[in-house]
Amino acid sequence: MSAHPLAANEIDFSRLRLVSHEPLNAETILTHQMGVITPTAAFYVRNHLTLPTIDASAWKLSIEGEVKKPLELTYDALRALPERSLLATLECAGNGRAYLHPPAEGEDWHYGAVGTAEWTGVPLRRVLEQAELLPSACEVMIEGADDGYHPKAGKRFSFVRSLPLEQALHPDTLLAYAMNGEPLTAQHGFPLRLIVPGWYGMASVKWIRRITGLAQRFQGFFQVDQYVMTHPERGEAGKTPLTTMRVRSVITTPAEGATLPRGRQVIRGLAWSGEASVSRVEVSMDNGATWERARFTSEALRYAWRAWEYQWDAAAPGPTTLQSRAFDEAGNTQPVTPEWNRLGYANNAIQRLQVTVS
Amino acid sequence: MSAHPLAANEIDFSRLRLVSHEPLNAETILTHQMGVITPTAAFYVRNHLTLPTIDASAWKLSIEGEVKKPLELTYDALRALPERSLLATLECAGNGRAYLHPPAEGEDWHYGAVGTAEWTGVPLRRVLEQAELLPSACEVMIEGADDGYHPKAGKRFSFVRSLPLEQALHPDTLLAYAMNGEPLTAQHGFPLRLIVPGWYGMASVKWIRRITGLAQRFQGFFQVDQYVMTHPERGEAGKTPLTTMRVRSVITTPAEGATLPRGRQVIRGLAWSGEASVSRVEVSMDNGATWERARFTSEALRYAWRAWEYQWDAAAPGPTTLQSRAFDEAGNTQPVTPEWNRLGYANNAIQRLQVTVS
Repeated sequence: MSAHPLAANEIDFSRLRLVSHEPLNAETILTHQMGVITPTAAFYVRNHLTLPTIDASAWKLSIEGEVKKPLELTYDALRALPERSLLATLECAGNGRAYLHPPAEGEDWHYGAVGTAEWTGVPLRRVLEQAELLPSACEVMIEGADDGYHPKAGKRFSFVRSLPLEQALHPDTLLAYAMNGEPLTAQHGFPLRLIVPGWYGMASVKWIRRITGLAQRFQGFFQVDQYVMTHPERGEAGKTPLTTMRVRSVITTPAEGATLPRGRQVIRGLAWSGEASVSRVEVSMDNGATWERARFTSEALRYAWRAWEYQWDAAAPGPTTLQSRAFDEAGNTQPVTPEWNRLGYANNAIQRLQVTVS
Repeated sequence: MSAHPLAANEIDFSRLRLVSHEPLNAETILTHQMGVITPTAAFYVRNHLTLPTIDASAWKLSIEGEVKKPLELTYDALRALPERSLLATLECAGNGRAYLHPPAEGEDWHYGAVGTAEWTGVPLRRVLEQAELLPSACEVMIEGADDGYHPKAGKRFSFVRSLPLEQALHPDTLLAYAMNGEPLTAQHGFPLRLIVPGWYGMASVKWIRRITGLAQRFQGFFQVDQYVMTHPERGEAGKTPLTTMRVRSVITTPAEGATLPRGRQVIRGLAWSGEASVSRVEVSMDNGATWERARFTSEALRYAWRAWEYQWDAAAPGPTTLQSRAFDEAGNTQPVTPEWNRLGYANNAIQRLQVTVS
């Protein structure tokens, strides 16, 4: 673990399931989640390359490319710009990949590559305004300071992504320096990361060192080769870039495989959508024949998941499948079967959780 | 510290100012606060007596007194009841006592006996409904498992408070078992504490072991001798119990005594009121001659403080006093001078923060 300069207790491995060791990838054990906030030490960890160790006092953020006034901002200069705080759920695009058949390429995430935190930072648009983005710019490229040889790409590079102008200039797209009321930890992007609320996590680039206005669309590995929906199995050559998180719900209580006594049982979970607010959640205990409406137990927030519960009278002994499905204001809901795709993204199919009533 | 069975990193003393060691009292150093959430390890700590060490598996909550069906609930039984999560600011009634002249009795809190967290638990009313509170009940008494000799009271007892029925039955009054997404820590009331959103912290009893329906008003030490506004200096014998938090704002950036270069400086702070939502915050850099409106940097939430900032052009070199004042929807604002009272509560006077522009 010498490659990960962890502060004491920066990661609580008792609340995470290790997915890969080098680079470190780990998902939240959602049965521990209480309420809306995911504690930072229990938040899923996603690395593509080698975790950078950055000294904030020596670090600078460069803004260059299609801008009138290229800038370098120190950490303190950035901290003095107008700021904004919001709660937002981040979900890895590969969350749920483990449930695709046949298996798809990539990390074997179950349901826990998702979490919610409060993020504080400077809207990206403030920095672009200061640098005076030129009309020739059509995208903004964000470059991480992580670095390493990527076996799939066959070369050494950093994690780099671009955002279309509309999303880069959205007032809720943040250059965040704080998570849950304190500076970002190394694993979550110290000193600066992007937060693109509502989008899958790949857009929220960590350890940012450079922002570049682009006059043409970015064609980097993590933009056009990864994080795209591809369907060679259908004979289709197209690639659709991933953007907003699909509507989804997960069950956090009871745990998979639990044995429950007959009588009243509580079923709890979380629901989110990157496209619109979640409007309702339903649960089924009879393989989807009937669905009952769950009750929300937390407030509606623009970008954060919402907690829900259902008080279930577990009357019939034996094995039972619990399912939940969320709907959003845009009319989206979850499919029964996943949309298989080569790279295993965006699986928002209804979870099937097995319990036994004794 | 052997009396405090702390888990590793349960308290971050680098972010707290020690007010008393035995019992442990410590306030948040607010210059570290970023955004709305106060990290649990940096949240102010308030003990009156000896911190109890409770084994949740052996613990039970008793509901008795003026109820039709006295109950005992285990931790697991409580966790299975319908729950609710909300963000709420808690402020110690004595916050700001250090700024009263002449000094008032009690702990010497500066401005940091206040913090905001997400709380998850069961509405108190659910438990009272289950026990079938009788019409004879006019108050609900909540008893902590802390215990000890209290020098001012001259005897040994626990921290006990009562709530009027209206507040006890309010759907947002919670028996909370989680803070910021994980079980309460020992210092913050494990396994169960009350959260009375909008009220000063004394109402939010920690380490609850018993809840009792009362047919008459409770006359305990922490109800009628402490946490009351008394004005013997005015020749008044009356005691007014403290309830909701008065409207208040604090400045978190810059720090007291800071030296700032001329030019643009950011002033940041937090504002809250237990009576109504905060409607605006103003700042003054000229001893209150003129006031400028600050900008909110976080969303309006029903019970949580709101972050604000003001971009100041520090043009004139020399010592400068920064002030902020909050207004709430009920038309309340902060006084210039505190309302002195014998026990030093509810000082919401405007903060005066000294800096030097160089």
